[in-house]
Amino acid sequence: MSDNPSFVLRGIEDVVYEDRPIPDIADAEVLVEVKKTGICGSDVHYLVHGRIGDFVVNNPMVLGHESAGVVSKVGAKVKHLEVGDRVAMEPGATCGSCDFCKSGRYQLCEDIIFAATPPYDGTLARYYRIPGHVTYKLPDNLTLEDGALMEPLSVGVHSVATLAQFKTGQTIAVWGAGPVGLLCMAVAKAFGASRIVAVDINQARLDFAKSYAATDIFLPPASNAGENKVEYSKRSAEALKRTLGIEDRGPTAIDVVIEASGAEVSIQTALFVVKTGGTYVQVGMGVAEVVVPITMLLVKELNVKGSFRYGPGDYKLAINLTAQGKVDLKPLVTHRFAFEDATTAFRVTRMGKSEDGKGVIKAIISGPGVSVNDS
Amino acid sequence: MSDNPSFVLRGIEDVVYEDRPIPDIADAEVLVEVKKTGICGSDVHYLVHGRIGDFVVNNPMVLGHESAGVVSKVGAKVKHLEVGDRVAMEPGATCGSCDFCKSGRYQLCEDIIFAATPPYDGTLARYYRIPGHVTYKLPDNLTLEDGALMEPLSVGVHSVATLAQFKTGQTIAVWGAGPVGLLCMAVAKAFGASRIVAVDINQARLDFAKSYAATDIFLPPASNAGENKVEYSKRSAEALKRTLGIEDRGPTAIDVVIEASGAEVSIQTALFVVKTGGTYVQVGMGVAEVVVPITMLLVKELNVKGSFRYGPGDYKLAINLTAQGKVDLKPLVTHRFAFEDATTAFRVTRMGKSEDGKGVIKAIISGPGVSVNDS
Amino acid sequence: MSDNPSFVLRGIEDVVYEDRPIPDIADAEVLVEVKKTGICGSDVHYLVHGRIGDFVVNNPMVLGHESAGVVSKVGAKVKHLEVGDRVAMEPGATCGSCDFCKSGRYQLCEDIIFAATPPYDGTLARYYRIPGHVTYKLPDNLTLEDGALMEPLSVGVHSVATLAQFKTGQTIAVWGAGPVGLLCMAVAKAFGASRIVAVDINQARLDFAKSYAATDIFLPPASNAGENKVEYSKRSAEALKRTLGIEDRGPTAIDVVIEASGAEVSIQTALFVVKTGGTYVQVGMGVAEVVVPITMLLVKELNVKGSFRYGPGDYKLAINLTAQGKVDLKPLVTHRFAFEDATTAFRVTRMGKSEDGKGVIKAIISGPGVSVNDS
Amino acid sequence: MSDNPSFVLRGIEDVVYEDRPIPDIADAEVLVEVKKTGICGSDVHYLVHGRIGDFVVNNPMVLGHESAGVVSKVGAKVKHLEVGDRVAMEPGATCGSCDFCKSGRYQLCEDIIFAATPPYDGTLARYYRIPGHVTYKLPDNLTLEDGALMEPLSVGVHSVATLAQFKTGQTIAVWGAGPVGLLCMAVAKAFGASRIVAVDINQARLDFAKSYAATDIFLPPASNAGENKVEYSKRSAEALKRTLGIEDRGPTAIDVVIEASGAEVSIQTALFVVKTGGTYVQVGMGVAEVVVPITMLLVKELNVKGSFRYGPGDYKLAINLTAQGKVDLKPLVTHRFAFEDATTAFRVTRMGKSEDGKGVIKAIISGPGVSVNDS
Repeated sequence: MSDNPSFVLRGIEDVVYEDRPIPDIADAEVLVEVKKTGICGSDVHYLVHGRIGDFVVNNPMVLGHESAGVVSKVGAKVKHLEVGDRVAMEPGATCGSCDFCKSGRYQLCEDIIFAATPPYDGTLARYYRIPGHVTYKLPDNLTLEDGALMEPLSVGVHSVATLAQFKTGQTIAVWGAGPVGLLCMAVAKAFGASRIVAVDINQARLDFAKSYAATDIFLPPASNAGENKVEYSKRSAEALKRTLGIEDRGPTAIDVVIEASGAEVSIQTALFVVKTGGTYVQVGMGVAEVVVPITMLLVKELNVKGSFRYGPGDYKLAINLTAQGKVDLKPLVTHRFAFEDATTAFRVTRMGKSEDGKGVIKAIISGPGVSVNDS
Repeated sequence: MSDNPSFVLRGIEDVVYEDRPIPDIADAEVLVEVKKTGICGSDVHYLVHGRIGDFVVNNPMVLGHESAGVVSKVGAKVKHLEVGDRVAMEPGATCGSCDFCKSGRYQLCEDIIFAATPPYDGTLARYYRIPGHVTYKLPDNLTLEDGALMEPLSVGVHSVATLAQFKTGQTIAVWGAGPVGLLCMAVAKAFGASRIVAVDINQARLDFAKSYAATDIFLPPASNAGENKVEYSKRSAEALKRTLGIEDRGPTAIDVVIEASGAEVSIQTALFVVKTGGTYVQVGMGVAEVVVPITMLLVKELNVKGSFRYGPGDYKLAINLTAQGKVDLKPLVTHRFAFEDATTAFRVTRMGKSEDGKGVIKAIISGPGVSVNDS
Repeated sequence: MSDNPSFVLRGIEDVVYEDRPIPDIADAEVLVEVKKTGICGSDVHYLVHGRIGDFVVNNPMVLGHESAGVVSKVGAKVKHLEVGDRVAMEPGATCGSCDFCKSGRYQLCEDIIFAATPPYDGTLARYYRIPGHVTYKLPDNLTLEDGALMEPLSVGVHSVATLAQFKTGQTIAVWGAGPVGLLCMAVAKAFGASRIVAVDINQARLDFAKSYAATDIFLPPASNAGENKVEYSKRSAEALKRTLGIEDRGPTAIDVVIEASGAEVSIQTALFVVKTGGTYVQVGMGVAEVVVPITMLLVKELNVKGSFRYGPGDYKLAINLTAQGKVDLKPLVTHRFAFEDATTAFRVTRMGKSEDGKGVIKAIISGPGVSVNDS
Repeated sequence: MSDNPSFVLRGIEDVVYEDRPIPDIADAEVLVEVKKTGICGSDVHYLVHGRIGDFVVNNPMVLGHESAGVVSKVGAKVKHLEVGDRVAMEPGATCGSCDFCKSGRYQLCEDIIFAATPPYDGTLARYYRIPGHVTYKLPDNLTLEDGALMEPLSVGVHSVATLAQFKTGQTIAVWGAGPVGLLCMAVAKAFGASRIVAVDINQARLDFAKSYAATDIFLPPASNAGENKVEYSKRSAEALKRTLGIEDRGPTAIDVVIEASGAEVSIQTALFVVKTGGTYVQVGMGVAEVVVPITMLLVKELNVKGSFRYGPGDYKLAINLTAQGKVDLKPLVTHRFAFEDATTAFRVTRMGKSEDGKGVIKAIISGPGVSVNDS
């Protein structure tokens, strides 16, 4: 390895280390020496399928987009950073001049340059070039691992705070206790939720959720022979409500549901559980088409929102909540790998557990030459 | 017929005229002599199926809920009305003290007494008892037929103005050119839409929509053999966009879609057509479960809302828009019937056209003893 | 004393105990045996001036409106309460049918029957008649004193949560460290404010604020000879910003200011301090007319709101926050009086301290026959 | 005159023509040949006072910022424009990367380069360099004069549509019938206001307002001897309400007031007139400090907003409304001047009428070599 070692996806199940040139930076950019990178389900998906929807890996692409590092070079126009600053890196460089960028929804910018979304390279390299205004100096009490986890935490902030407009004292239920679901719960907890229900089909994940942020957990029942999905989901929703003492209206009702699994029956169940007049946010991405009990939207007059990445203010709030101690990211990092073991890190994430049987929540890959023990 | 002749549904396909007692009124109520009543799809649905979802006609129930009339008696606490006033009647008497009533969404009140929703009687009678605060004096330039149509117009106001927050200059597409769809278009036109696209599978309805409020119309293509619904809907959406010069983003994109048909392929097509970052409102009620391209919610970060009846201010705005001449309801009344011909009125509405082949948009039944020619 | 002993204001500085008849209740009402009542500045104002603005005490009026008690009788239509329930009493009975009541701002109802606002009697009596839907059962972990303090806490909830739409992680500054100001700080703390600045001209009150909820305190400088109020306020604002390291923009800026003193220089200073694009809420009522640096509204494009009492959901959220332990009301109760010592309670509140020199935050008067030591 | 003749303010009352170099453009910019420029009160203010608040003309500065022209050169990255396109020019080049720019309020960007705001040159020159994304191609049915007036119309759009969130069917009152006030009325009319009240102390301006967009006009009464301003304003408000049949609540009440004069008594009167629960927008800039009846904010729980320039979407909506014929700008252009007569144009605007006694609403200066008769 030499100047800018990079972990490159060349095609389905085909990754390799390459030495890429160190990028030049423009006046409004900085060069970051990447120290810690979390692996996300989308990275794994590109590895396994070579595409996500219309985004196809046609050319070799560096993987990784959940990163933090140390500033190594600062463009002339960047005033808030210095060489040596520890930073979290928001992985989308937006155009700044389209209607979406100007009106406060830059996540919908058509010209966004998003790390590890084809055709753009990601952050699993020694150096990454990034606009200064999406590079955030880490407060002293945050680690670089915390910094890397600002990316998935921002997804939680965007879903719970920005889209669902979650308010202190409200109740929430989250389907899917993986990293995004857990971080949605963490944000709800930081916002002062009075009740946080975690739903997952894996008891170990539920147990972790309970120890981490959930006040209540629910393992859906097994399905019955001959029961279709909607029938099952309705029965599952009734079981959840009965078990936890939840009604459609009033103080026990669930104000906000977050669907973070993408599973069809979870989507259905969540629509049956959310209260009359409540808010449903879809953040999990699973199958492209699902059967939906559309009558629920009408008779409960629901507010349903799709959540895509994160927008203005989400990264800053993620950092703020963590720096204040309202969110604790450390318990989520279950596995750590050296840069040269990136392939193992991907395999372990894909399996959901390491060889010792330990379940993966989040695996972190250190940058080239960085010790896995430095957090 | 004598004191309070009423048109009563006793069971599936079983209607009869009964003479009911004239209701007593409480201090906060008025007694209205009903003059004009529009027939709504839900009235027909109760006639044909004896139920809508969980609402089952177990006991004889007077039909009708789109009504206007003349005040015949005024409770002591009602200050804004006098005997002889011509009034529009909002058919939901809410409890006024639950959380929904207090927080501005009274349409979700669990204890609402809604005309012609079991077990509550409707308005197809000589007299109807109603709280004063949901009884609106008609401006002089509105007819009693206009007054009856305030009910479906309020559904359009609720969907387009209140829920979609439609703004002057925006674009809209409406699936379904029946009464509710047409009135959604009428509201969009009154609000200064820059483009109103009507979509329907019936060319005559589209032609009417064009003459009434739409700027553009679209007849979906026929489906191909072996094509599943989502494939068809995607192709239909592409055809619509290509034909009308509509894109996903920018000035030609569709800001708001209203789904007023309840048909599965319409729901799917509308989700494919609405712009990135746009708003989708479901107001049509059809099958209970539909296949939805859920990915659209995510990648376009949509705002999806269910629309249920109407809420605070909707009736007042409906009257205001009509009185100012921004909405014209007269073209919608295609058929008129005397009270004793109510059965025919229902049959014609159910068929969608009268024996002379004339398509039904809205049929109006006059009150007992009222001439069908008085509007 | 016999059936319903009541503490009655007959005119300026003229209070007396009267035995009033026990009220009958309607079906939707309950009768509450009042156990604890906090004294509010408005009660004192009526005692001293016989009026507040256009509200004039022309007839004898029972004082008191911050109360909790025990349900003694339940109307037939009230389903959520039983005799013996400990309850907080929201002191405004709204009409439920005007536009404000229906659209979610019942605090603006013209026909509201508000305790101890002429001509309506207040709660300083053994029994008080109240609609069931504004009577809230207290969770087991709340005391009756907590219940009485739900009233001023709801003012804080309304100002900070409902009007300012305060969000977790934001910064706030509050002018006036009396009960309302302190409770605004408490709500901001419960909502996860990252910084809470208290401003007051009394160091002891600031010290209490710091121990209670504020992260920072500021004692304004003395005014200089020849300096007009706006000049002074500008200088005071600069001093505050310099001392606390606050800027007009960026992470140190103040997102929300709450003016809870009503003092002219506080109003001015707060307008100079709030950030560009920020929110200002006026809750303190002082002089009727003040000089305002209106240019601040323009160049900072401020959002300025007046706060009046509380509206839908505020009482419930106040109870929820306290029951969850996010707000602690106990430190605010500095003085307790028996019912027969109500006059002393008013005198002490008016002086701002008791004879032993202890500053008053909130004085509580127990109901007739209730021990001051039962909280 | 030669390459780039420019109308330059050198100091108070000191203007001169200079030949400036033709600007080079960057890849994201265009060069516009300026054809029409409206004169704004702020241009006159700089001429007369050499400053507006903290913005001081320390170096020679080209005046003018309400302009339209023809594209003369296009940067490589600008895709939506071609040489020869007729364009409206939004005069603020924002940074695109600060929190305000990213969150949808770019008008508050600290680094904005705003035409004719020191130290930045304005548009009264042959050529002006401008970012492509704030340069809008004019629809064919708009003139270049219309294009120049998009600037003040955007102020109206921002105040009425964006800030006041004006809705079809609402009522509005506007203080000040100058260009901004008239354009606020025009926007309210385009949005379907049910009533538009114009208030001004000049009967001729009121008459014009009535002919242009107002449904009602009001000339405030003369003040009485010994009456202070607030007393006068209260009396004036009562007279307005009585004359026009306006109440504090209900259907005749004024939902939104726009204060576009900056005069102290107008501010006060508007606060007395706006309905309980209503919205007040300050857009007029007058004296820096005014006496305000602050009690109105509290007891009517008002929503008060300052309006500063315009933000995302405002220019596009201004163009859209005009292109659709919902706003007619032509009646506002009362005076036209050749480039070499710019000094006269300023003098006439300052006087408020030309030598023939004709009142000025808007004076337009043509670009160098452009005929005043081409609109």
